[in-house]
Amino acid sequence: MLEKLERVSYLYDIYGFFLTSKQQQALQLYYFDNLSLGEIAEIQRISRQGVYDLVKRALQSLETMEGSMKLYERYVYRKKKLNDMMEIISALELEIRGKEINRLRKIVKELFAENEN
Amino acid sequence: MLEKLERVSYLYDIYGFFLTSKQQQALQLYYFDNLSLGEIAEIQRISRQGVYDLVKRALQSLETMEGSMKLYERYVYRKKKLNDMMEIISALELEIRGKEINRLRKIVKELFAENEN
Repeated sequence: MLEKLERVSYLYDIYGFFLTSKQQQALQLYYFDNLSLGEIAEIQRISRQGVYDLVKRALQSLETMEGSMKLYERYVYRKKKLNDMMEIISALELEIRGKEINRLRKIVKELFAENEN
Repeated sequence: MLEKLERVSYLYDIYGFFLTSKQQQALQLYYFDNLSLGEIAEIQRISRQGVYDLVKRALQSLETMEGSMKLYERYVYRKKKLNDMMEIISALELEIRGKEINRLRKIVKELFAENEN
């Protein structure tokens, strides 16, 4: 469940822009504010079933976009590669010190920051 | 003009998925197949003005998505950083040789490939 929540959270951050505002609101209330379907139904003035359908379709949309653009998959891939690089740079640092290693480390940090943005 | 074409081409690759199929077709015919508005109007069975509006709105949509998600800007940023890293690795290679440097170079190449995908 926590894993699913993390995935929804990332997909929402990446693709939430493309959902309708009703879908955005329903996902936020359900997944991030932990409201029940009944509570969301009252806020959105639709039926409980309506909220359920809204959330379900929103999740499907997020997964369809990820299936096509793979931005989350690529984010995870880059993160792993950057971690690998950081390890190698630390190992190299034991052997040699100097401005090149510092510059490499700085760039990897910048790419990490870009990836998390 | 070439610069604009390159930008449209990248934005289309990244965000084309979110355009309507009519918009996709109009952009492809106009920018990548170099057809005139009149020729596209015949193919799409709409007026020349209709094609013009379609292309204009499609470009606006691409720019709106880029304004929000900045995927092209981030692609350019990563490319620059990876190029910088490759240069440093080449400089380091003159000083030291070994499997760490080779592994670093391999990872940077993988990240380049991922970025171009």
